Amino acid sequence: MQIAVVFHSGYGHTARQAHAVAEGVEQSGHAKALIVDVARDIPWDALQASAGMIFGCPTYMGGPSAVFKTFMEASSSRWMKQEWADKLAAGFTTSSSQSGDKLNTLVSLAIFAAQHGMLWVSTGLMPGNNVSTGSVGDINRLGSWIGAMAQANFDQGPDIAPPASDLQTARLLGQRVASTARRFAGP
Amino acid sequence: MQIAVVFHSGYGHTARQAHAVAEGVEQSGHAKALIVDVARDIPWDALQASAGMIFGCPTYMGGPSAVFKTFMEASSSRWMKQEWADKLAAGFTTSSSQSGDKLNTLVSLAIFAAQHGMLWVSTGLMPGNNVSTGSVGDINRLGSWIGAMAQANFDQGPDIAPPASDLQTARLLGQRVASTARRFAGP
Amino acid sequence: MQIAVVFHSGYGHTARQAHAVAEGVEQSGHAKALIVDVARDIPWDALQASAGMIFGCPTYMGGPSAVFKTFMEASSSRWMKQEWADKLAAGFTTSSSQSGDKLNTLVSLAIFAAQHGMLWVSTGLMPGNNVSTGSVGDINRLGSWIGAMAQANFDQGPDIAPPASDLQTARLLGQRVASTARRFAGP
Amino acid sequence: MQIAVVFHSGYGHTARQAHAVAEGVEQSGHAKALIVDVARDIPWDALQASAGMIFGCPTYMGGPSAVFKTFMEASSSRWMKQEWADKLAAGFTTSSSQSGDKLNTLVSLAIFAAQHGMLWVSTGLMPGNNVSTGSVGDINRLGSWIGAMAQANFDQGPDIAPPASDLQTARLLGQRVASTARRFAGP
Repeated sequence: MQIAVVFHSGYGHTARQAHAVAEGVEQSGHAKALIVDVARDIPWDALQASAGMIFGCPTYMGGPSAVFKTFMEASSSRWMKQEWADKLAAGFTTSSSQSGDKLNTLVSLAIFAAQHGMLWVSTGLMPGNNVSTGSVGDINRLGSWIGAMAQANFDQGPDIAPPASDLQTARLLGQRVASTARRFAGP
Repeated sequence: MQIAVVFHSGYGHTARQAHAVAEGVEQSGHAKALIVDVARDIPWDALQASAGMIFGCPTYMGGPSAVFKTFMEASSSRWMKQEWADKLAAGFTTSSSQSGDKLNTLVSLAIFAAQHGMLWVSTGLMPGNNVSTGSVGDINRLGSWIGAMAQANFDQGPDIAPPASDLQTARLLGQRVASTARRFAGP
Repeated sequence: MQIAVVFHSGYGHTARQAHAVAEGVEQSGHAKALIVDVARDIPWDALQASAGMIFGCPTYMGGPSAVFKTFMEASSSRWMKQEWADKLAAGFTTSSSQSGDKLNTLVSLAIFAAQHGMLWVSTGLMPGNNVSTGSVGDINRLGSWIGAMAQANFDQGPDIAPPASDLQTARLLGQRVASTARRFAGP
Repeated sequence: MQIAVVFHSGYGHTARQAHAVAEGVEQSGHAKALIVDVARDIPWDALQASAGMIFGCPTYMGGPSAVFKTFMEASSSRWMKQEWADKLAAGFTTSSSQSGDKLNTLVSLAIFAAQHGMLWVSTGLMPGNNVSTGSVGDINRLGSWIGAMAQANFDQGPDIAPPASDLQTARLLGQRVASTARRFAGP
């Protein structure tokens, strides 16, 4: 079974998040990860062969990056035939602010997947960093459920940001999509 | 297998939509429908015993009705334990306008379900009434994918509105959630 | 006083809507309209000289078109300096479905304008086509308030679609932004 | 000139945010603040006499609290007559998570205000806590523009949470709405 991680990254932070999602897919033991950078050629047939797709991009000016949106629009010929119907989908995004309108990106990805007739997988995580003993190191530290969020400081390169907790949150999303796909595929 | 249809209706239009969803669940042959009107006592144990929940309410002033929101908040004790995690979820809404900010209600229901760790089922329907030969009689005539929309004229009672096409759209959502639940449950 | 109508159009339908918005601006008697097609060179200085900007684009796959999103991202250098702060803003969009996830596009435009520190102008119109005597000819026939919606049948060119009612709805938005700008500018 | 701060608070945290907004209104020197707790009787005439309304409530299960939604629905008789048209509006919300789906609450408030024909005022603030030297003490530390966000740790009472930075962010929103109302009212 294969799960595609379909992403765009502007400065490398979302790429790190994407690779963490892919690690989670593989660590699940249920599926292989196909990493697709939408700034390159899109392997449409390989996407079609996937049991699910996890979409991710930076949040720029309050929504999905234009580069990722270009991919979304290129998928409209698949939409016309509902080729992705009943596949699993999930989403992730990075920006430099804690909230930073990232929810609008994730909702936009979920609406996009719904148009394709896909089934949307939530993070399934309790929130972190919401008590006085909380910290940046907590899983799901930003408190997001419709998709995985990461926050990367504006002045830090992708070697440092986003923090380990956000990458682990991304990893858990990958694991969850893979195990859900396994359960969904049946024995 | 049981799918719950959990709804609020102010004037009866959304109740008709809810019953159409429930009919679809049963017509699928895959599941029984449990109809829950949140204005009455909530059968929490029966909800817990369901493989999925289809949430619906009117769109009032741009979002889910306050009565339904009260139910959503009452579910927070279940949320704390993530008791509904991995169940299927879907949504529907009615208002008197064609678009009428209904999307905000459906997105709010999807975000709510994501907080519960549920998996969101889209309508899986191509849009109707989007060509010159289109009409009010078309399935998915309002063009919605993250959930099912119905439009009920302000001056028509629930005996007349919403139109048959919107009820059939609701029925197909019920069928789809039930067949997805069957596939998800395995043999 | 000048109001900019900043738009992208894929097949000409949104261009017609944009020109109707611009007509409304001029018919108000309060302002001149500067029409900016973002697929061409962006006249950044002229935008800066405007009292308000009305943003519009097609809804593609549930959100603002990638071409328009590219403009939104290009504005980030202005955002850094908050050069557009306190200007008026408003939005419009076209798609082939009645609802068609257009609300997500308008919300995305409103969030974008908020990042720029702008003040968002609603349509200020009661809904049409929401009673049994309603029709396609009604103003605000789709029922939208955070911005103006138009619906263009998939099989009709921009000479025919969107219908006159949607263009008049767009015209009224242009008028409203211009008269609000006049009131806001003071005597 | 009077600006109304219309709010609901469940445990006192949003009440603190509301009072900070009101302080900002008064500190502006442009307007008096009318504080309206929607859990009590609504002073509809005093609301009508206000130049603007700043709406706020907790984010519960991903959206505006049901108590506040009840107020929103009670305003529908005013909506029918568009009595609030052209008044200013703005929004704020509190939850225990950093992002915590608060954006959905603020968008829901903005859609509500748009239905009323109001003009929406953004925060007009650059983001804080988005660089390596950032901290909880930064203004707009959560990064929100369509409204003001506050985060209150789950285990801290309203005497301690939300932190001073979030209250100052709220204060600045109050100031901004008041000064915008002054500019809008003319000399």
